[in-house]
Amino acid sequence: MASEFDLIDRYFKRKAPAGMLGVGDDCALFAVPAGMHVATSTDLLIEGRHFFADVDPRALGHKSLAVNVSDLAAMGAQPIGCLLGLALPQVREPWLAAFADGFHAMALAAGCPLIGGDTTGNPGGLAISVTVFGAVYPQAALRRDAARPGDDIWVSGVLGEADIAYRLLSGQMPADDALLARTRAALEWPQPRYALGQALAGLAHAAIDISDGLLQDLGHILRASGVGARLRMDDLPVSPALAGLPADRLRHAVLAGGDVYELCFTAPAAHGDAIRAAATHAGVAVSRIGVIDADEALVVLDADGAPLPDLPRGFDHFRST
Amino acid sequence: MASEFDLIDRYFKRKAPAGMLGVGDDCALFAVPAGMHVATSTDLLIEGRHFFADVDPRALGHKSLAVNVSDLAAMGAQPIGCLLGLALPQVREPWLAAFADGFHAMALAAGCPLIGGDTTGNPGGLAISVTVFGAVYPQAALRRDAARPGDDIWVSGVLGEADIAYRLLSGQMPADDALLARTRAALEWPQPRYALGQALAGLAHAAIDISDGLLQDLGHILRASGVGARLRMDDLPVSPALAGLPADRLRHAVLAGGDVYELCFTAPAAHGDAIRAAATHAGVAVSRIGVIDADEALVVLDADGAPLPDLPRGFDHFRST
Repeated sequence: MASEFDLIDRYFKRKAPAGMLGVGDDCALFAVPAGMHVATSTDLLIEGRHFFADVDPRALGHKSLAVNVSDLAAMGAQPIGCLLGLALPQVREPWLAAFADGFHAMALAAGCPLIGGDTTGNPGGLAISVTVFGAVYPQAALRRDAARPGDDIWVSGVLGEADIAYRLLSGQMPADDALLARTRAALEWPQPRYALGQALAGLAHAAIDISDGLLQDLGHILRASGVGARLRMDDLPVSPALAGLPADRLRHAVLAGGDVYELCFTAPAAHGDAIRAAATHAGVAVSRIGVIDADEALVVLDADGAPLPDLPRGFDHFRST
Repeated sequence: MASEFDLIDRYFKRKAPAGMLGVGDDCALFAVPAGMHVATSTDLLIEGRHFFADVDPRALGHKSLAVNVSDLAAMGAQPIGCLLGLALPQVREPWLAAFADGFHAMALAAGCPLIGGDTTGNPGGLAISVTVFGAVYPQAALRRDAARPGDDIWVSGVLGEADIAYRLLSGQMPADDALLARTRAALEWPQPRYALGQALAGLAHAAIDISDGLLQDLGHILRASGVGARLRMDDLPVSPALAGLPADRLRHAVLAGGDVYELCFTAPAAHGDAIRAAATHAGVAVSRIGVIDADEALVVLDADGAPLPDLPRGFDHFRST
């Protein structure tokens, strides 16, 4: 095995941005703009649980950082940098090079450079730990406990694709190459909404990314804020890639499908135009899907205004549905 | 399996310190004192590689955070908080309770509260990811590249115990219960030198913790600073717990034994008294073990002033010696 230090240097050491101390000391150092707080989040990704062992390493590098940048977006924070922990069952350099490429490309796009980390062996399988840092004015942060009755509920992008792609790849749905081709990018190359998230800071109230599924993650906002919600099924932005799927499969994918890095957020109705303008500027579609109620319940209404029975639960993780 | 959210709440959710947003949102939020930079570091600990599967979970919780706090100490940073990622093969609640106890006790002692994290299942074995944050004035940070010719080289605490305890526990040395009893705490309950580290900021030049062994880690300082070093073997603070061991075993443990969370640091000779006073105030012994040379070599001198031949290399990780 090449030494840990060689590997770090070869694939992960980049010149640190001005004013930062990056990879190669006991700690990385970075400054925070005056008046802003540090927003930070960490995710562990485990082979066989959060990704398939044979996934394209470039996509995996991208996604490892993307899911964390998505947490910054859901807080309204501007990315500063990230740390990467890699536990590798073996050193395959082409794999590592592709992983690093995907990771660094995401870092460059989001303005979230790699500034430190840790590399180790792990006979038990690949484990990836990413920690991100961003900056946000504390009064403008999009906290889960900030939803208010009367807020509109919004979601970015389209829903359902990642769930279907996962079911196709794991054999839970019969093989369908055309459908897989239309949905796979949502699962493997999610696009975190960092530009939208920053634009929403100070404009929206609460936000969350829907990595555990729309209903479960919206539920976190509702519980933290002590409010409820009414969603309109017909207003949910179902991906056009899913046209033709059975209605119950579609409904489950849209309401409970996880691994989605779109933002669900709430905002005063009076901010509707400003939100549409911010979304246009960020290049992201947004849909108004319901309203926050004072009553602590979560209902989804059908086209006739009747509550859907038997709402699917969200899930804890990738494989538990 | 209890749900991820229940587990997080039960064992890891603590009231966030004033002015911080802790566990339970997309990100944790914290402020940084004006003029200071954020110091951050992450470590991945893997079952079978960084710890034995049957280690006392309270000790493991302690050590998981301690080795990261040690990186803040080696930067001269004041701890702010930490994130914990846990990938668990199964949920055994007594294990989790003990792990959390050890972790929180270290967090309380170091002033480094848990403010966020991630929990997931992992059939492949236990993996622990910890990220720490601290604050340091950038001019005072103890960087690896800051050693200067003429600096004294210092080390805190005593050396050699963790290496011997590891060899006893892994069967690389014949069983010796008395020796294990004297050395085991150094391996399982390392005490990071955060008070000393903060006191050295602005007083010392370069610092590092010797988690990879004295020679290897001092080597990192030398390479980063473009200097060399002469150490005096007789000045190294060999642990009295190791009395009676063969000389070659002892020498290897002291020079190359890893998993040591003492600080090795360099400072101008004129700061010797101030350093001794800072160490006394921090309650940590320090020893002056050599000097930094302009010449880029690392030599260890015996009692007669002759360089020791065949210096042991350090190691990449726990099991690779």
